[in-house]
Amino acid sequence: MWSLPPSDSVLNFLSLVAVAAQGMTAALAAGRRSMDWLGVCFLGCITALGGGTLRDLFLGHYPLAWVQHPVYLVLSGGAAFITILIARLVHRLKLAFIVLDAIGLVVFTMAGCDVAWQMNASLPIVIVSGMVTGCAGGVLRDVLCNDVPLLFRSELYASVSVVTGLFYATAFGLKINDELWTILTFVLGISFRLLAVRYKWEMPKFVFTGDED
Amino acid sequence: MWSLPPSDSVLNFLSLVAVAAQGMTAALAAGRRSMDWLGVCFLGCITALGGGTLRDLFLGHYPLAWVQHPVYLVLSGGAAFITILIARLVHRLKLAFIVLDAIGLVVFTMAGCDVAWQMNASLPIVIVSGMVTGCAGGVLRDVLCNDVPLLFRSELYASVSVVTGLFYATAFGLKINDELWTILTFVLGISFRLLAVRYKWEMPKFVFTGDED
Amino acid sequence: MWSLPPSDSVLNFLSLVAVAAQGMTAALAAGRRSMDWLGVCFLGCITALGGGTLRDLFLGHYPLAWVQHPVYLVLSGGAAFITILIARLVHRLKLAFIVLDAIGLVVFTMAGCDVAWQMNASLPIVIVSGMVTGCAGGVLRDVLCNDVPLLFRSELYASVSVVTGLFYATAFGLKINDELWTILTFVLGISFRLLAVRYKWEMPKFVFTGDED
Repeated sequence: MWSLPPSDSVLNFLSLVAVAAQGMTAALAAGRRSMDWLGVCFLGCITALGGGTLRDLFLGHYPLAWVQHPVYLVLSGGAAFITILIARLVHRLKLAFIVLDAIGLVVFTMAGCDVAWQMNASLPIVIVSGMVTGCAGGVLRDVLCNDVPLLFRSELYASVSVVTGLFYATAFGLKINDELWTILTFVLGISFRLLAVRYKWEMPKFVFTGDED
Repeated sequence: MWSLPPSDSVLNFLSLVAVAAQGMTAALAAGRRSMDWLGVCFLGCITALGGGTLRDLFLGHYPLAWVQHPVYLVLSGGAAFITILIARLVHRLKLAFIVLDAIGLVVFTMAGCDVAWQMNASLPIVIVSGMVTGCAGGVLRDVLCNDVPLLFRSELYASVSVVTGLFYATAFGLKINDELWTILTFVLGISFRLLAVRYKWEMPKFVFTGDED
Repeated sequence: MWSLPPSDSVLNFLSLVAVAAQGMTAALAAGRRSMDWLGVCFLGCITALGGGTLRDLFLGHYPLAWVQHPVYLVLSGGAAFITILIARLVHRLKLAFIVLDAIGLVVFTMAGCDVAWQMNASLPIVIVSGMVTGCAGGVLRDVLCNDVPLLFRSELYASVSVVTGLFYATAFGLKINDELWTILTFVLGISFRLLAVRYKWEMPKFVFTGDED
């Protein structure tokens, strides 16, 4: 999702894991809609790369990551395709899957913050950029599957992205953006997400039909 | 939604009202889908700022308004959040709400026309730019709520935008774009919209299932 | 959808046919959702021009085709409007319609490849650009009609686009991009699509609900 100095090879590797994990979530969602194989691969690409694409469009950040590195398309589409073949297994490995998905969310969020920061965006936009990168792909997936986006309804997904972004961006403000901070943010974000899933932390819901008068 | 000379402080104020009003309509729509609080705020931002964002993407008009002035995000998301708290009240104040929404439609349309005009777009594109700015946010709201967009189905919403844009843009052609014209357009647009709601003016609908053969 | 040398007047004419055909498919889809007349025309424009618009946004290729040549808006919206009036007839002319739609798919795909190639994109991006141009409009149509996109589910539509793009782009690689190759690609793409419709060629579907454990 972004170009890093060679020293950041860990984050770079994690971002590849994240792209693949998001492609896999897309395939599992597609299974409920009886899409054909090519459709599943498309949905994988859109889910994994849609967030970063929207961010780049919003910030005018060209060329897009997948235009410059088409390998991202192969990776996300390929992960979706492999998921077709091993769907039964993936489904059973639910825990591994949740962890991979959390890595995707947190790493994408950090990548989004980095891109906005490098373009000298203001702090709120850095946070929003992280959130769009981390969350928008899943929203696109749900819209294309004709669902109300899960993001708007379920456990703390977007909240994790916001908190991760805020914590990560603190380092930019304090000029202490070093390796240690990156690792700290990563651990914090993953832990928050996994705890939210484990203990079913949810936001209050707003239900209002307007029919009661 | 756009940068104005200080003299245009009335329009500038109205555009803030418009952003807030659109955020509130989004919250009311979200109430039917049991979204969580953060989801409601997102939907508020997307509804209020989505039209202007699409327009800016289409015209290559960077930076986007909300990237430059993140206060728009706070305003639209905040208006959605407040609506959660006072939903019962807002629902009762239906008339005030319809007026606010009409202001949003008309002011956004004029803003969209202005942006395209300043970029030397041709007349049809000026009109389309106004329409996209005025209407696309509501379409995004409906897609994310998993509805067929209201815009395509209900009272004269898009039509009001087109008429307002045409009337407003006449001034550009005639080089008489002064304060008076702006006020005239505003009054015309609001009146047209309110009359359409009051008397349930609708376009003919096209119903064709193709089953009759 | 793209600017051609005068010699390419055949392709240029076909692309106008393609825009109109896509607008007509949109109108027929809208008929099932009881949209009003203006909504049908919008849907026509979005379906016919949405693919090229997305491609241009992804590649940063400004100005957009319809911003530069607003006549495309008139053509696609007008085709949708005329379809309202003659829906019964269009429905009966199913074969003509399928052929027009196939022309749209193939011509848009070639146009998309051309644009990316002229921007010196890599080969995979040339193919993707063709596919987005050829297929994304239909996806937008289905999302706005609140359907799971047909593209992801039905006969070989996207596949035709990929094969056409691959074949067409071969010429770029071999530097033999002449008139003959264009015609060959056109014939190949149309034939493939029509055969797929005729013999109901479909991709295997991926169905997985995860309920069986």
